[in-house]
Amino acid sequence: MATKLTAAAREAALKGLPAWRYDKDSDAIQREFKFKDFSAAFGFMTRVALLAQAANHHPDWSNSYNKVTIALSTHDAGGVTRSDAELAAAIDLLAG
Amino acid sequence: MATKLTAAAREAALKGLPAWRYDKDSDAIQREFKFKDFSAAFGFMTRVALLAQAANHHPDWSNSYNKVTIALSTHDAGGVTRSDAELAAAIDLLAG
Repeated sequence: MATKLTAAAREAALKGLPAWRYDKDSDAIQREFKFKDFSAAFGFMTRVALLAQAANHHPDWSNSYNKVTIALSTHDAGGVTRSDAELAAAIDLLAG
Repeated sequence: MATKLTAAAREAALKGLPAWRYDKDSDAIQREFKFKDFSAAFGFMTRVALLAQAANHHPDWSNSYNKVTIALSTHDAGGVTRSDAELAAAIDLLAG
């Protein structure tokens, strides 16, 4: 069972994820990605979907043409867990 | 060049799209779709992406696990056009 990170642990995790920021309102970590066009954006989303499905941990995300915004939190734990930080790191690797 | 539909024309178009509603704030038509799980939701999104890319008309959309919310408007025209109504009808066909 995933446990919500303490604020200190979350901040420590975010040190390794400099492109992500913590959003207090949604109690999630977020990052926006920008691509050349829709095709590139949706290609990225497809790779993230495969990753998320394999990890059984799914993002809350949106897309508008070449932009993709991803928010990660663990609903069952009521906040950001180690799984969110791990998925964020894996997504960063995809984004290059 | 796409022309924004008049309010009357938009309402007439929505009569043929009963699952869609007009959102005044975003000046877009919206529909929420619910699926069995993430895999089904993302499969649907992939089919919509292919459709959108072929039509060169792209949705503003979000996904959270088994839910997909789609908003259609034409940025260049500053509102809802015939292209949005056509894409909405094509998406409805995919959703079955």
